[in-house]
Amino acid sequence: MVKVGIVGGTGYTGVELLRLLAQHPQAEVVVITSRSEAGLAVADMYPNLRGHYDGLAFSVPDIKTLGACDVVFFATPHGVAHALAGELLAAGTKVIDLSADFRLQDADEWAKWYGQPHGAPELLEEAVYGLPEVNREQIKQARLIAVPGCYPTATQLGFLPLLEAGLADASRLIADCKSGVSGAGRGAAVGSLYSETSESMKAYAVKGHRHLPEIRQGLRRAAGKDVGLTFVPHLTPMIRGIHSTLYATVADRSVDLQALFEKRYANEPFVDVMPAGSHPETRSVRGANVCRIAVHRPQDGDLVVVLSVIDNLVKGASGQAVQNLNILFGLDEKLGLSHAGMLP
Amino acid sequence: MVKVGIVGGTGYTGVELLRLLAQHPQAEVVVITSRSEAGLAVADMYPNLRGHYDGLAFSVPDIKTLGACDVVFFATPHGVAHALAGELLAAGTKVIDLSADFRLQDADEWAKWYGQPHGAPELLEEAVYGLPEVNREQIKQARLIAVPGCYPTATQLGFLPLLEAGLADASRLIADCKSGVSGAGRGAAVGSLYSETSESMKAYAVKGHRHLPEIRQGLRRAAGKDVGLTFVPHLTPMIRGIHSTLYATVADRSVDLQALFEKRYANEPFVDVMPAGSHPETRSVRGANVCRIAVHRPQDGDLVVVLSVIDNLVKGASGQAVQNLNILFGLDEKLGLSHAGMLP
Amino acid sequence: MVKVGIVGGTGYTGVELLRLLAQHPQAEVVVITSRSEAGLAVADMYPNLRGHYDGLAFSVPDIKTLGACDVVFFATPHGVAHALAGELLAAGTKVIDLSADFRLQDADEWAKWYGQPHGAPELLEEAVYGLPEVNREQIKQARLIAVPGCYPTATQLGFLPLLEAGLADASRLIADCKSGVSGAGRGAAVGSLYSETSESMKAYAVKGHRHLPEIRQGLRRAAGKDVGLTFVPHLTPMIRGIHSTLYATVADRSVDLQALFEKRYANEPFVDVMPAGSHPETRSVRGANVCRIAVHRPQDGDLVVVLSVIDNLVKGASGQAVQNLNILFGLDEKLGLSHAGMLP
Amino acid sequence: MVKVGIVGGTGYTGVELLRLLAQHPQAEVVVITSRSEAGLAVADMYPNLRGHYDGLAFSVPDIKTLGACDVVFFATPHGVAHALAGELLAAGTKVIDLSADFRLQDADEWAKWYGQPHGAPELLEEAVYGLPEVNREQIKQARLIAVPGCYPTATQLGFLPLLEAGLADASRLIADCKSGVSGAGRGAAVGSLYSETSESMKAYAVKGHRHLPEIRQGLRRAAGKDVGLTFVPHLTPMIRGIHSTLYATVADRSVDLQALFEKRYANEPFVDVMPAGSHPETRSVRGANVCRIAVHRPQDGDLVVVLSVIDNLVKGASGQAVQNLNILFGLDEKLGLSHAGMLP
Repeated sequence: MVKVGIVGGTGYTGVELLRLLAQHPQAEVVVITSRSEAGLAVADMYPNLRGHYDGLAFSVPDIKTLGACDVVFFATPHGVAHALAGELLAAGTKVIDLSADFRLQDADEWAKWYGQPHGAPELLEEAVYGLPEVNREQIKQARLIAVPGCYPTATQLGFLPLLEAGLADASRLIADCKSGVSGAGRGAAVGSLYSETSESMKAYAVKGHRHLPEIRQGLRRAAGKDVGLTFVPHLTPMIRGIHSTLYATVADRSVDLQALFEKRYANEPFVDVMPAGSHPETRSVRGANVCRIAVHRPQDGDLVVVLSVIDNLVKGASGQAVQNLNILFGLDEKLGLSHAGMLP
Repeated sequence: MVKVGIVGGTGYTGVELLRLLAQHPQAEVVVITSRSEAGLAVADMYPNLRGHYDGLAFSVPDIKTLGACDVVFFATPHGVAHALAGELLAAGTKVIDLSADFRLQDADEWAKWYGQPHGAPELLEEAVYGLPEVNREQIKQARLIAVPGCYPTATQLGFLPLLEAGLADASRLIADCKSGVSGAGRGAAVGSLYSETSESMKAYAVKGHRHLPEIRQGLRRAAGKDVGLTFVPHLTPMIRGIHSTLYATVADRSVDLQALFEKRYANEPFVDVMPAGSHPETRSVRGANVCRIAVHRPQDGDLVVVLSVIDNLVKGASGQAVQNLNILFGLDEKLGLSHAGMLP
Repeated sequence: MVKVGIVGGTGYTGVELLRLLAQHPQAEVVVITSRSEAGLAVADMYPNLRGHYDGLAFSVPDIKTLGACDVVFFATPHGVAHALAGELLAAGTKVIDLSADFRLQDADEWAKWYGQPHGAPELLEEAVYGLPEVNREQIKQARLIAVPGCYPTATQLGFLPLLEAGLADASRLIADCKSGVSGAGRGAAVGSLYSETSESMKAYAVKGHRHLPEIRQGLRRAAGKDVGLTFVPHLTPMIRGIHSTLYATVADRSVDLQALFEKRYANEPFVDVMPAGSHPETRSVRGANVCRIAVHRPQDGDLVVVLSVIDNLVKGASGQAVQNLNILFGLDEKLGLSHAGMLP
Repeated sequence: MVKVGIVGGTGYTGVELLRLLAQHPQAEVVVITSRSEAGLAVADMYPNLRGHYDGLAFSVPDIKTLGACDVVFFATPHGVAHALAGELLAAGTKVIDLSADFRLQDADEWAKWYGQPHGAPELLEEAVYGLPEVNREQIKQARLIAVPGCYPTATQLGFLPLLEAGLADASRLIADCKSGVSGAGRGAAVGSLYSETSESMKAYAVKGHRHLPEIRQGLRRAAGKDVGLTFVPHLTPMIRGIHSTLYATVADRSVDLQALFEKRYANEPFVDVMPAGSHPETRSVRGANVCRIAVHRPQDGDLVVVLSVIDNLVKGASGQAVQNLNILFGLDEKLGLSHAGMLP
């Protein structure tokens, strides 16, 4: 039984970790921290958990308690994991960070996009980017894992087959992405109110979004060279779900794209390449740790369209974190993650 | 391993049965029927099930195949189970009917509300009303189980403690109920369109709804006498969820209602009496087989308000059906039903 | 042309006033205040107003500028109008207050429910409760008008015909009310987030809501005696709309309720009594200054059910405020308020 | 007073025409037809219209009655206007067709996309494409106007400035478009149910959508040469709204795009070029006949992103139809269309 700690469990990725781990047969949450809610039972904050975590309450973060865990998840705003990860690693505890703290390999780029100096550049070299479909072997050996962001997961998984095969013009990639409102977190912000977001759609951060350098870094690795990416995120009136609509120029029209995608993900338990002509819906992965992908070549032109959907809180965050835990501790990768999506 | 058949699996209670049974360790769906979709793989109709039911396709209903099952669920419009249940019982197959066909004990009343003669009155005597919190012992011995409707489940569980204890004025009960749109089923009806139901609320069937006699029958049993019930259902812009707001006159102000409710459901695995002062949210039971209840006495008056929430497709239909299966086959009642609700 | 000032125009009742007044041929908004947003053009905050209020920007509240208006609307949290109304009246400016500051006639009761002393008890005697269907004549003569709350408007208009006719048992009234999320305002609160409120329903404040004494006061006036009211508000996943489902005991079954309601509101331009058997939808009044009502007597029993719907931001706030303005200044009561609801 | 007839008024564009024309001071709806609903009062079908169209009921289409109108709107499925337009024109009645029947100038292309022969090819030459921002002068002289589709309106208005100026690479245009569910109409289809579309997003018709040739035709005209367009529509969980996110390569980085767009639409009453850096929201045009546009050049690259939003039922259908009526009859183009969008 893997002993799990969670730092900062009051947000949506926190409650989603608790929901998923409640059904995990080989992992047990022994500590969950929150400065602001210390003392409160988790089930009093999240009534969906009543009956699942009797006795578990938020506590003030404490390195001794956390250090007694086998692994600690960070479900925190950026910056927090910088401060604590090193101590935990020194205590022999593995770290799976759901925040952005260790996703970018370049500390300067991190500083530029997050508006503050990187707090633990010395850990960057060993941090493993926790996208199992790319880094499964490194994850097995890791001590510190950076769980990919939601947009980056859906977008990278959609582009990878084309870039790894060298088929796409890497200089002209477009990711038009649509996210549910839970991606903005549980913070009290006017822009996330029901009355501000329901029955409306808008793009945001067209000038530049923090997930842009993360996606670019992953695509660069896949392409083996620099990439040009235009990334336009949109706020969509739904709680969960990311729909990435990806555009790439693939001049060679003779290639069997469907076969390419199917082969690339043939052994991936959590990537589902749908039949040719499909249009994946975000609700088909609601609550499930799955990325569903379809690839199209409209009008038989040279522009390929890839549709890639995930649940931002599962494959885009907490589910992927549990998948990393499973790999890290030598468990069946699907443990606790094999339920179907909830539809309708 | 219990061999399960499903008749009429294309609707929402059908896909929800499949979602729940995909995780059930002691039950296996071996046949699922649909005349209109015969030949179609279930995962082609419901992409959330991709990877969970490889090889399972809809087939034309056939008494031989169904009769080879240990149990058959009916997830059909009313009238269908009337026609087939007898044959299945004769073949030694148990029947769990999610439709309204065997819920009312009085064939004439059924005929009145459903506008057609009852098709199998000879089976009514042995049909057991599958509300485990009331009929657990009878369910264990049953061959034919009528799974309660969604409104009736939430409403009965909320009223029961008051009526069984003889505390409420049984002649003046009010159930003001709010249901998500999935309660109207997957039929193509203008009234269920997104553009007709989103961002709006309305009452319907104030004159009389088919669940009224079912609720009244259950409350009569609990009260041990005739009851007067006003039932007003409302269509609410959400997919899943029923919120029953119940009003009963309880003249005796000395009774500890919180203790009464807690004691009544102390041993019930799927009824959660929340702490005094609580307001249960439907989302706290989204996807979960739970009824959460809170009891209030506003302004210390003689009118008691009970709030009772369920997911209409789970505790209000398919989850309760699986709960009945577990009881019927001597399994742990919580098998396959122990996951937490999905929030947010 | 009536010169209008608005104090506190950044909330939803503020922007709704601006939307409605943009089409009002006899009123002109000359000043709108907001301490926090002073200097910002209203169209920069509310892009739906682009092209309608060129040059109008929020300014710091200033008694001189406001006092130069013919009328000032308060679209503020409670307490603000207490502080400013007296000065404005002294300057000869009329005040239409959309907040709760002058709705309750009893300063002590106000203090009890709002948790602070009443700030202008000396004005209570002349304050007119701005429900035109009850107080039209007083409104014509008023200097200070308290616009009714949203729940109180829908609920009073539904109960009035029964109580004024002395038909209902006034000691046992129930108002089960459902409100859209905009009723909670534009404040950044976790409880109003999209991810917290979408796809869910809950009751709240069952113990006691601030609109309870306001409704009770109005019903008492109508009944000519004390009333017993149970009021249960619910948060519904929609932006706009209030649906009041009202229950009253009417022992006399010989009375023609449909005729009673039609007669009561025959000359009311903004109350629509629907045909017998109707179920009004909130969307039918979306954006419109209308209250639609239907009256039912289910199962021909002694419990009468009234369904009453409004748009909480229009007939429940800003539209009713403009209606009061029209009456106050001797204009056609329908001026600027005659558009149809937006459906779908 | 212009006498208006509406053919096929039971759908969403029909009720929206009625809503808008109810406030139009120079137009009067004298006849509205529907075979299926003949005899029904329009306010009985659409309760938001109660009080606005007393006495107006649906009637069976009849060329004599329609021919007595000054203008007839077709709010019908494709094919219907083909059959009737000629007769009406012969009777001296002008025709404003909201369907797709006369949008494509090439009858063969129409036949290919709509799967049936064009029913009135002899009228194509005189049919005017009713996009006032392009064809205002022709509209003034027209007898037969084809009102543009919803996607085509938002998409063309977004691309026009770039193409007319010859700045964009016309061979590589991308339109990633998101539509509310009302775009699918009021037909009873499973795919438009609340439970199928709420809380989910999906692309559809990636292989080819009927609006593709219409958009291509308009862009070709603007560019003065053939264009290459990839068009991916998405179904978004909202009732109203289209958000077009447009991508075009503009190699010349010295051009002031903001100035270009502002100049192009400087005299257009219904196109609002927002300030640089803006992200238009669909809700800002809810119910209003406005297209709001923002233009971005992310990362100062050669890919330009244009954001263009409309209400699909207003500027994307019925509002634009009324705008055409105003132009056609020499009225102020803004008559009946000057109200602000409804936000929240």
